Amino acid sequence: MKKSKSSVIRFLYAASESSADVFYLGGVFVPDPFLSMQVDGKSYAVVSRLEYGRVKAQSNYHEVYLLESVQAEAVKSLGLKGQFAGPAELMLFFAKKFKVRTAEVPADFPAVYYAALRDAGLKVQISEDSFFPQRAIKSDLEAAAIREGNAASAAGIRAAEQVLRASQIVGKRLKYDGAILTSERLRTIIDQACLGKGAIAQNTIVAGGVQATDPHEGGHGPLKPNELIIVDVFPRVQKTGYHGDMTRTFLKGNANDAQRALVAAVRESQLAAIRKIKAGVSGATVHAAAADVFTAKGYETKRVDDGFVGFIHSTGHGLGLEVHEEPRVSPKAGRLRKGHVVTVEPGLYYPEIGGCRIEDVVRVAKDGCELLSTCHYRWELK
Amino acid sequence: MKKSKSSVIRFLYAASESSADVFYLGGVFVPDPFLSMQVDGKSYAVVSRLEYGRVKAQSNYHEVYLLESVQAEAVKSLGLKGQFAGPAELMLFFAKKFKVRTAEVPADFPAVYYAALRDAGLKVQISEDSFFPQRAIKSDLEAAAIREGNAASAAGIRAAEQVLRASQIVGKRLKYDGAILTSERLRTIIDQACLGKGAIAQNTIVAGGVQATDPHEGGHGPLKPNELIIVDVFPRVQKTGYHGDMTRTFLKGNANDAQRALVAAVRESQLAAIRKIKAGVSGATVHAAAADVFTAKGYETKRVDDGFVGFIHSTGHGLGLEVHEEPRVSPKAGRLRKGHVVTVEPGLYYPEIGGCRIEDVVRVAKDGCELLSTCHYRWELK
Repeated sequence: MKKSKSSVIRFLYAASESSADVFYLGGVFVPDPFLSMQVDGKSYAVVSRLEYGRVKAQSNYHEVYLLESVQAEAVKSLGLKGQFAGPAELMLFFAKKFKVRTAEVPADFPAVYYAALRDAGLKVQISEDSFFPQRAIKSDLEAAAIREGNAASAAGIRAAEQVLRASQIVGKRLKYDGAILTSERLRTIIDQACLGKGAIAQNTIVAGGVQATDPHEGGHGPLKPNELIIVDVFPRVQKTGYHGDMTRTFLKGNANDAQRALVAAVRESQLAAIRKIKAGVSGATVHAAAADVFTAKGYETKRVDDGFVGFIHSTGHGLGLEVHEEPRVSPKAGRLRKGHVVTVEPGLYYPEIGGCRIEDVVRVAKDGCELLSTCHYRWELK
Repeated sequence: MKKSKSSVIRFLYAASESSADVFYLGGVFVPDPFLSMQVDGKSYAVVSRLEYGRVKAQSNYHEVYLLESVQAEAVKSLGLKGQFAGPAELMLFFAKKFKVRTAEVPADFPAVYYAALRDAGLKVQISEDSFFPQRAIKSDLEAAAIREGNAASAAGIRAAEQVLRASQIVGKRLKYDGAILTSERLRTIIDQACLGKGAIAQNTIVAGGVQATDPHEGGHGPLKPNELIIVDVFPRVQKTGYHGDMTRTFLKGNANDAQRALVAAVRESQLAAIRKIKAGVSGATVHAAAADVFTAKGYETKRVDDGFVGFIHSTGHGLGLEVHEEPRVSPKAGRLRKGHVVTVEPGLYYPEIGGCRIEDVVRVAKDGCELLSTCHYRWELK
């Protein structure tokens, strides 16, 4: 194996269940933190005997080491007589083995190992930006996996729609299948529909009325007729690790003029943003296009008492192995590149009218963008 | 507010969705990383306007700051003319505001902020052990939340049992509801049962035959009659964040003598371990009690070719906001304390017989332990 003096060893130490970077490198889910690394374009992992067989068979690593064996080797190689080789010692061992003096680690690398490597004399660079910038550029296979995630989202949203359609209005409540329909109950039905598509939904939002004007409020208690209900579903497909992320806003009963105008403005804003998207255009420009629609229609964004009203979040975010990842579609965001996958989800929130958000997912192309999510936009359910 | 010279500011920077420490401090789920901290026994958080209202209303923090306001204050206070105040700058601002020169951070604190704080002249101590040692000692309320998690696990396991009972043996396959029963299908049914109890199950294991002898293999493809099938379910209750973790091993059809002996040995080992558990006894002693049962019966643990057979994992682990947390029940584990909650899950794995694991959860008491999980142990399903 060629070794140039300028070689760098890139360390990751996390569970691939929770770290998208670790999963991206190895392509296999491991529930507990473990060491993986890159040297000279090759990738390696060190796993315990509980994981060894599975990781060796299913991962993309060039080589998989058995933790117990490497620990013994490290103790010998580093002269740690009678001591235990923990993660930092294993990293020092591999730096020595690969004859490398400089390490690179991601911004979220555990401080305890960073400090130990530095104290041991290794030069350690912290990657302030993305550790794998190519993660933001989605291949056709990744786009298909995100489509699959959105199919799960759509299954959840359609399940919610069917339940709302089948519900009866009884005074200020909705009744479904003999019992009062709550946010919690509808959320469970949505999440079960996602599971039916092989995807795990967490923190699904089913928020009606004033609750929906707090964008990260999940929603609780009985849903009411004649109120806007935001349904935001972002499940992760268990097999691939990729997410879907879609939002629709429904209303059961009869909408008033203010609600109709609000929903129409949000959809118009979404379309204006989507029309702007193509490679080379900045996320800031796309966000401005969405915001301009609201401004032109007189929807103000401002602080009111302890809260905020109007268009109070950014237009979108990257989507992939994480629900929120690079790039952003927000006031200061940089250029979109071909292959970026982003959500487009403008919204308006006013306690006296309600909240509305409509969200789809697109992949940026040379001359426009490709929709990776499909679900109709009918929202008034009689 | 009293300020002693010895004050330390303790920083956390992570999403409470993914960091149990952050959730433990604030008691509210936030999906993106944010700054939280402790000074002089009081706790604080800095969140964006998207989270502000909800976190202020629902969290345990003594004070919640609005990110956008604090950023402006930090720019002024630190003289960052025209610059942006990122997380590290906010931390430096609060150290200054609280007149503290020493910070403490957890082992998994992001290296990039650790380095920035040190470079700015702050003394930073990395907590090598648990950041909140009291997290390992469960209150009655926490024990009840873990019981609820195990009730969800049990609902999943009972759903699996019912499906296996209702299945027909057709040659070397099981048929349920008109179609071949696979690990994937049974997993979905289990996970949906957990959701029905308000808990999200991830990586549920449904592994039969040789697959079950690789303890972290999730299981895939058709399930077969007359083979041991391990069902391991560890969902997280959405409302509280606490987990359940239970395992049962089933067999559909007729067991042979080797399978019966294996299952009996695992249950005997589990009971031997549970009988040892009380405050003051070491996890190592408990593990030895479980292992001794196997040794006495002639079940060897050893490396065979590329794999391992026998009792190839530890007896248990702490359970709470994380599936794996302190303390351990393993060969070198320290003393158990009153209030510790641990799994007790010995297992045996031999490709020629199959795998068996039986897992329950207990809370350590002064004179013994209290079972936090309930489900029968019948396993041969005709």
